[in-house]
Amino acid sequence: MGDTVRFTLSERDIPTHWVNLMADLPPGGPPPLHPGTLQPAGPDDLAAIFPMALIEQEVSTEPLIEIPEPVRDAYRLWRPTPLHRARRLEQALDTPAHIYYKYEGTSPAGSHKPNTAVPQAYENAVAGVRRLTTETGAGQWGSSLAFACMLFGLECEVWMVGSSYDQKPYRRSMIQTWGATVHRSPSDRTAAGRAQAHHTTGSLGIAISEAVEVAAQSPDTNYALGSVLNHVLLHQTVIGQEALAQMEMAGEYPDTVIACVGGGSNFGGLTFPFLRRNIRDGATTRFIAAEPAACPTLTRGVYAYDFGDTAGLTPLMPMYTLGHDFVPPPVHAGGLRYHGDSPLVCALVKQGLVEARAYRQNETFDAAIRFARSEGVIPAPEPAHAIRAVIQEAEAAREAGEERVILFGLCGHGHFDLSAYDAYLAGSLEDPEFSEADRDAALAGLPKAPALT
Amino acid sequence: MGDTVRFTLSERDIPTHWVNLMADLPPGGPPPLHPGTLQPAGPDDLAAIFPMALIEQEVSTEPLIEIPEPVRDAYRLWRPTPLHRARRLEQALDTPAHIYYKYEGTSPAGSHKPNTAVPQAYENAVAGVRRLTTETGAGQWGSSLAFACMLFGLECEVWMVGSSYDQKPYRRSMIQTWGATVHRSPSDRTAAGRAQAHHTTGSLGIAISEAVEVAAQSPDTNYALGSVLNHVLLHQTVIGQEALAQMEMAGEYPDTVIACVGGGSNFGGLTFPFLRRNIRDGATTRFIAAEPAACPTLTRGVYAYDFGDTAGLTPLMPMYTLGHDFVPPPVHAGGLRYHGDSPLVCALVKQGLVEARAYRQNETFDAAIRFARSEGVIPAPEPAHAIRAVIQEAEAAREAGEERVILFGLCGHGHFDLSAYDAYLAGSLEDPEFSEADRDAALAGLPKAPALT
Repeated sequence: MGDTVRFTLSERDIPTHWVNLMADLPPGGPPPLHPGTLQPAGPDDLAAIFPMALIEQEVSTEPLIEIPEPVRDAYRLWRPTPLHRARRLEQALDTPAHIYYKYEGTSPAGSHKPNTAVPQAYENAVAGVRRLTTETGAGQWGSSLAFACMLFGLECEVWMVGSSYDQKPYRRSMIQTWGATVHRSPSDRTAAGRAQAHHTTGSLGIAISEAVEVAAQSPDTNYALGSVLNHVLLHQTVIGQEALAQMEMAGEYPDTVIACVGGGSNFGGLTFPFLRRNIRDGATTRFIAAEPAACPTLTRGVYAYDFGDTAGLTPLMPMYTLGHDFVPPPVHAGGLRYHGDSPLVCALVKQGLVEARAYRQNETFDAAIRFARSEGVIPAPEPAHAIRAVIQEAEAAREAGEERVILFGLCGHGHFDLSAYDAYLAGSLEDPEFSEADRDAALAGLPKAPALT
Repeated sequence: MGDTVRFTLSERDIPTHWVNLMADLPPGGPPPLHPGTLQPAGPDDLAAIFPMALIEQEVSTEPLIEIPEPVRDAYRLWRPTPLHRARRLEQALDTPAHIYYKYEGTSPAGSHKPNTAVPQAYENAVAGVRRLTTETGAGQWGSSLAFACMLFGLECEVWMVGSSYDQKPYRRSMIQTWGATVHRSPSDRTAAGRAQAHHTTGSLGIAISEAVEVAAQSPDTNYALGSVLNHVLLHQTVIGQEALAQMEMAGEYPDTVIACVGGGSNFGGLTFPFLRRNIRDGATTRFIAAEPAACPTLTRGVYAYDFGDTAGLTPLMPMYTLGHDFVPPPVHAGGLRYHGDSPLVCALVKQGLVEARAYRQNETFDAAIRFARSEGVIPAPEPAHAIRAVIQEAEAAREAGEERVILFGLCGHGHFDLSAYDAYLAGSLEDPEFSEADRDAALAGLPKAPALT
């Protein structure tokens, strides 16, 4: 047998702490603002829809936050996840680079999303909350929250974007299999939904408004968000914490860490424990955030205060944004179709600690198929963006003749996305371009707020 | 943290040997017969479509067969697979039983099928074969063989049952993603297909005939089968070999081992290493084979020589059969819709070493949802039959007040089967009954051959 290619931790090795990069971010990011007063939004502004334990995590400056025992106990249902060395991909690329990937597709939901759904459900259950609401597009987040609520005995109601509800019934069925309720959005259950009843296909913005409205109006009901916020990224650092230990088993340390970015939770989850080593210990790892060229928030957006949602209900967040009215073209990487990004990830890009790159849909599917034909796993369209960047870096290592160590996040399998593969292989997959005019129109609608430098 | 629930082996622990139960089967099963001469079919009868290395495995009486190093190397892409203790299911059932499951859904194809696809592709590549052909129904086997052929540089052509080709495009896309070719069966590429061109929906029998015809006529092309044959079950014993080591880690030994049975490869793969301990070492484990009540081969079939395929091309095999003309109702557990069963598994049932039970479709989905709502993983419809039996056994342990140890095989995830869950949850899932009249009509067509006792 050749060198080790699969680095396996036992359940005893599930990390005891999440990494809170807020503690290390120089000089500390700008605060979110209340949309009415433009004053920094405080814990009280969030208390109507989040439990205090999560709000404390959201604003904490402790560098490490202990993972509650019941959360670790639930993680044991699928964690630790494997870390692989992609030897067959290295050979196919004829590169001296050593390529590693952390694979999150073995979770019950098939992606990394349960890593935060579980602690969110747990903290709400501890706080005596009876029910959680959320929105979902294609259903990755909604199904993961349904799974987590099932574990802690919470009811779960999911508003699913109408067009996905009609066209992508599979993750809707997952949500129901785990005992949660799914509403087609816009629904007649909320004022926000009734006001948009004419909007037949729905949108993520409308679905968010419906879920938040129900949570804000019901004392026993809270809301849960699947990305963007600090506490969500915090929970996902269980990925990078495990990867640190597994790279140590491999006897290597990454020169480059790569992950795709939509709202930022997958990217932050893998990279923050390594970024912390750069900031604290003088490590010199490079970090690459891969995003879709059709929704190039980090590479073609502006750094400004903007709403997190389309409807303009959330606090104003300091981030790269294409404008909250920007409607990305319908690329298959639904998890990356977001006008903004996690403020934490945006601050890292702004400060030059993270490099962002954008890739076209067709080149990411080409990369995904090269990966599937060497390593076996068929990737979801989102991590296909990371793989595109990995191939670029591996080719650069070959040209430089350098044995660079590359680690990337394979955040989910593509078993729900095979129709997109079908279209790509048939040559009929669209390759939408970014519209600067659409961005400029959306940026004209930015809320009035202090400028960011 | 409570007791361990997840038993993880490292890649160093991938078994070195498969278990060949042929060596232990008292008094040795009856031989397969050549369909023309009715004489025992020998290695030469198989040489036109299988490489000699696999034929030797098919007829070997060595108790252990070494796993070739390149096969172990490919297994490392996803093996060893985890063994879990289902503590949350135990609690939900309020049972003193300890329930363990071996989970094969983490493979690139999402099921146990790659365990044999890999060594079959390897031995054909070593023999200088350029191309493999096979048939597939819903696509589980065809996609696994495509994956394995990709690893060893073989071409792969899959004849897919027409109705599945049209209605279940997802696994067809997997096959193509891994670089193989899919033909809708009946196709115009074979005499067998052209003769059935009027048969618009196709059948597994026609697809087998097409794949075998191409392999038999092309010197550089062989055929690969995904279940039933001894060498296929042999390869799958990597599952049970790992489970033996993992049960040892857990400090327990199973009183009962349960798996679903279609062609027998999943059942044999998990149980044979434990059955060997019964036969050789006096262990007293019970073995339960779970099959669909709509296709109750082991519980309602006759023990007789019959063809393995619908078209009547294969050697006559000694097995429980419903008659090779029997067409099972369209239950969602497509992998269990087979008129016969592995001769090896049938001999074990005949000799009383294995108990068979049949379950209705709706009760298996009820069991699957109880499992998903406690342990998280959404099972494929096939292992849902095993879970139904597990619940029955766990309830019996509760009534007896005994701390029995139950191990079962969770051979695949249900991410491709969510439409069936959708139908079950909506109350619209059909629950087809077995037709004795259909069986009797099919049994009237059994080939002339010596009677079995």
